[in-house]
Amino acid sequence: MTEKTWTLTDVSDGTWLETFSASSRDLNLPDDVHWTVSKRTLRGGLQDGVEIVEVDNGDLRFTVLPTRGMGLWKGSYRGMALGWDSPVRGPVHPRWVNLPDREGIGWLQGFDEWIVRCGLYSMGPPGLDRWTSPQGESRSAPLTLHGRIANLPACFLQVRVETESPYGISVIGHVEESMLFYPRIELCSTVTTWPRSNRLLLQDQVRNSGGQPTEMQLLYHCNFGPPLLGAGAGFRAPIARATPRDAYPAEAVRALHTYGKPGSSRQEEVYFMELLGASSHRKTLAVLHDRAREKAVALRFHLSQLPFFTLWKYAGSEQDGYVTGLEPGTGYPNFRSLERERGRLGVLQPGEAASFELEVEAHEQPAGVSLLLEEIRQLQDEHGG
Amino acid sequence: MTEKTWTLTDVSDGTWLETFSASSRDLNLPDDVHWTVSKRTLRGGLQDGVEIVEVDNGDLRFTVLPTRGMGLWKGSYRGMALGWDSPVRGPVHPRWVNLPDREGIGWLQGFDEWIVRCGLYSMGPPGLDRWTSPQGESRSAPLTLHGRIANLPACFLQVRVETESPYGISVIGHVEESMLFYPRIELCSTVTTWPRSNRLLLQDQVRNSGGQPTEMQLLYHCNFGPPLLGAGAGFRAPIARATPRDAYPAEAVRALHTYGKPGSSRQEEVYFMELLGASSHRKTLAVLHDRAREKAVALRFHLSQLPFFTLWKYAGSEQDGYVTGLEPGTGYPNFRSLERERGRLGVLQPGEAASFELEVEAHEQPAGVSLLLEEIRQLQDEHGG
Amino acid sequence: MTEKTWTLTDVSDGTWLETFSASSRDLNLPDDVHWTVSKRTLRGGLQDGVEIVEVDNGDLRFTVLPTRGMGLWKGSYRGMALGWDSPVRGPVHPRWVNLPDREGIGWLQGFDEWIVRCGLYSMGPPGLDRWTSPQGESRSAPLTLHGRIANLPACFLQVRVETESPYGISVIGHVEESMLFYPRIELCSTVTTWPRSNRLLLQDQVRNSGGQPTEMQLLYHCNFGPPLLGAGAGFRAPIARATPRDAYPAEAVRALHTYGKPGSSRQEEVYFMELLGASSHRKTLAVLHDRAREKAVALRFHLSQLPFFTLWKYAGSEQDGYVTGLEPGTGYPNFRSLERERGRLGVLQPGEAASFELEVEAHEQPAGVSLLLEEIRQLQDEHGG
Repeated sequence: MTEKTWTLTDVSDGTWLETFSASSRDLNLPDDVHWTVSKRTLRGGLQDGVEIVEVDNGDLRFTVLPTRGMGLWKGSYRGMALGWDSPVRGPVHPRWVNLPDREGIGWLQGFDEWIVRCGLYSMGPPGLDRWTSPQGESRSAPLTLHGRIANLPACFLQVRVETESPYGISVIGHVEESMLFYPRIELCSTVTTWPRSNRLLLQDQVRNSGGQPTEMQLLYHCNFGPPLLGAGAGFRAPIARATPRDAYPAEAVRALHTYGKPGSSRQEEVYFMELLGASSHRKTLAVLHDRAREKAVALRFHLSQLPFFTLWKYAGSEQDGYVTGLEPGTGYPNFRSLERERGRLGVLQPGEAASFELEVEAHEQPAGVSLLLEEIRQLQDEHGG
Repeated sequence: MTEKTWTLTDVSDGTWLETFSASSRDLNLPDDVHWTVSKRTLRGGLQDGVEIVEVDNGDLRFTVLPTRGMGLWKGSYRGMALGWDSPVRGPVHPRWVNLPDREGIGWLQGFDEWIVRCGLYSMGPPGLDRWTSPQGESRSAPLTLHGRIANLPACFLQVRVETESPYGISVIGHVEESMLFYPRIELCSTVTTWPRSNRLLLQDQVRNSGGQPTEMQLLYHCNFGPPLLGAGAGFRAPIARATPRDAYPAEAVRALHTYGKPGSSRQEEVYFMELLGASSHRKTLAVLHDRAREKAVALRFHLSQLPFFTLWKYAGSEQDGYVTGLEPGTGYPNFRSLERERGRLGVLQPGEAASFELEVEAHEQPAGVSLLLEEIRQLQDEHGG
Repeated sequence: MTEKTWTLTDVSDGTWLETFSASSRDLNLPDDVHWTVSKRTLRGGLQDGVEIVEVDNGDLRFTVLPTRGMGLWKGSYRGMALGWDSPVRGPVHPRWVNLPDREGIGWLQGFDEWIVRCGLYSMGPPGLDRWTSPQGESRSAPLTLHGRIANLPACFLQVRVETESPYGISVIGHVEESMLFYPRIELCSTVTTWPRSNRLLLQDQVRNSGGQPTEMQLLYHCNFGPPLLGAGAGFRAPIARATPRDAYPAEAVRALHTYGKPGSSRQEEVYFMELLGASSHRKTLAVLHDRAREKAVALRFHLSQLPFFTLWKYAGSEQDGYVTGLEPGTGYPNFRSLERERGRLGVLQPGEAASFELEVEAHEQPAGVSLLLEEIRQLQDEHGG
């Protein structure tokens, strides 16, 4: 495979590009291949100092945030916005985010991304995690909401493109989560798309680069507001089991597949799910479609990598946050002690890495939406659903 | 009105000017109109990254801090310094300020401004605020000293000048205080002065840009040290009632109108006051004058907007902070639960805005000081004082 | 003495140089005098925004961190690395360090320096310090690990060189630790080396620039990993008394003079020591040498200034931190209340300054190492050891 690679940041040798841009034109690629990748630093407000990498494959655009743990800020597909309108105007530089603030929920100060990782050591609500070490010692650690990875900067950033078909366009970043006496966990993330594709692919490696075994957690918090979300929009997935996190009204639980209008509820709803995967390779998908079933987005992932799925519904007003989260994870965003008890904490041995893939697919034609829903039906049929 | 406007920052479209300067000369204004406005970013120390806008109307100069919630850092009028010498050398970038630090008083790490707003959701001491929601739920929120607004950056910054009489010179900034699941409150601040004027006018709009009603608090912490403050300097206002916050020695309370020399007391004194306003429009004023009554500064404001006034006296040594604060507010800087109980928390409905005006007037001639004191006497007479 | 001085930062007059470099060549010094000093700002990752000053005397190189309280990041002598490999990849900008985080040990998020100061108001573990004021009041203050000085930026930075023998090369920085109602303590640090010398000299003044007496603490946390540290490496000093901080296995305590290989222990060991000084001037030294006694580093200091010495041993794996700390201090890194009780807190009167000197000497020849060990033996003999 012929490739071209640019290193934008590498703290180990002092590489850092203030700005960067490359395009299919620069590389004399075929006329029907159109893409651009560019990097710059935002200035002013809470954005000041945030580095962004903007990728445009001709139809699909998205913004990668090296300054925020390689999250995806916002995207759009043929003009259809992907992401949501948070009451926080971001992307927010982590310098404005104080994780332990407000009893451990400071993470919300920076929360406005389309796709944000929760983890890597911990995710879920704040509190004092207590456990017994393999040596039998009582241990404890104060945790903050959804962990640290989204508020850590990449120490390495690269753009890599294929100069022959399928002309993949990738942004690669490394983020380290570590300090003395604590686990040392590294994220190596690659996000790839292809010219005119409606898809992007996140490929993450989470490595224990320390000398002791470490627990880990990872959840992809994928957030959508209008135009996909709206009154009558639908959530579909091949659900094996769904459990409300709290005691919601029965009618809310019955309506978990559909959405009310903005402002229709002040209470968030969270459902923990097990999904069905293709029996051959355990791949599955989760879909959000608009009321008219004309537009949709699908998340595709392996149950072997991300076995647990969380659906978050928050029908606040448009100003307060009208949003749903589709969240494949290594576990559920319960408090970590509970996840440990239930056996849903991953453990990485020294040097060991776990791989995670998440594919995001956007559709803006009814035919595409129908195929997705048909695919879910088939998965359910396959399992005798 | 003919105006000229420059946008220096607008995060919604990526506008950001590294530096800016404009002057009456650039606009071919009449020869006797002299002003300059300039913006730059400080470097080094705790100041690194702080944007400042410096305004000079020919006689009055002041520095606006977009990086610190549109506070006013320091000023001077015909060479007379306005502001104080804090033991913190600022202006301090909020990145060095950790609000929850030291049990919630981290705000002090950045406190060296002449005029700093406390608010917008809360002001006053740190602690756990507890209340019952309109729906009857028990709620609580940890608060940090004096709230968040002074350590949030402007997302919008504009300079606007009138190109005909009275040739007003304005700096406009917007600051947002919000995060998911929390109130969304926006400050739109305009500070205006006029060529050769001894006055500046703060005009603030505080808007609930969220979808739920929200409580709010605002206090203008206006701080003065030498040369205005000194042994024998005086505080004057048309006081209807004054209450010491704590049990101070009787002689201290009797001397609340006057000031001791630097280092004469290690304990701060705080007095809560109700002032008298003009019966027609409820406008009032508070004055600090030097011992010789040759220099003074007056704050003018509407009791309908800022009904409560706090006087802060701290006669620390010059190195530790020798300062007095004249503080008109929507309430007193008590702990928020108490202010709620006493009915001094404002409530803004969704979309609603409250307006606040604060005028600052500097005098460096005995005649001007006399007129101010006479004005206070007349207000008191009007009320049968 | 003929000198040349460059001011790189002075926040009091807005001086700030983005980059700086000077060399012996620029000054037409004699041919055998070779040195360079340069300053730049790192970009990317946790380093983004960290200013570094690199000094090279021809044989000894080191990096000063104005952004981190004038600590020394890393050094090398004739190719022998001085410092250690922390699991944190630094130097880390303090904006990424949240001191009260994780129950007060956020300091570790930025800990990767060769020589880092702990202090100035406090050092040692986090917790709530309680005491009674001279006025008999009960007081308390929450402390974070090792205090604030290492995460505060210099407000003043200068390079000064002698243009005649001995051609000293100095980097001077001032760092202020203060806020309203708290002690105001200033560090004026000078680090000096000489062409082709194996020595650097830290000369610190710690000044109470406030108006009240203040307690203070200072500890030089000097950290070493390979190549000096390794299995069989040795620690030597004229020890009068050594006390383990905790109950370690007897064999560990017996072996306190030597080191195990990386990963040989997960538990840190800390020894509190009193050293013997030369009877004439109370100067002493502490030495770390490699297994072969071919390389060593010596710290030299006055017991009148730094009477207490702490040895820190942490034989984590190479990935987790394999490191030893040689730590002369004004006291031990116990919790501050205990240090006060034992009379090991310094007190500075208003305006008073305390001076501290720490000399670091590197050797990469067996002869040099032998002389150091001989010197220690003589000190011990002098005291009848």
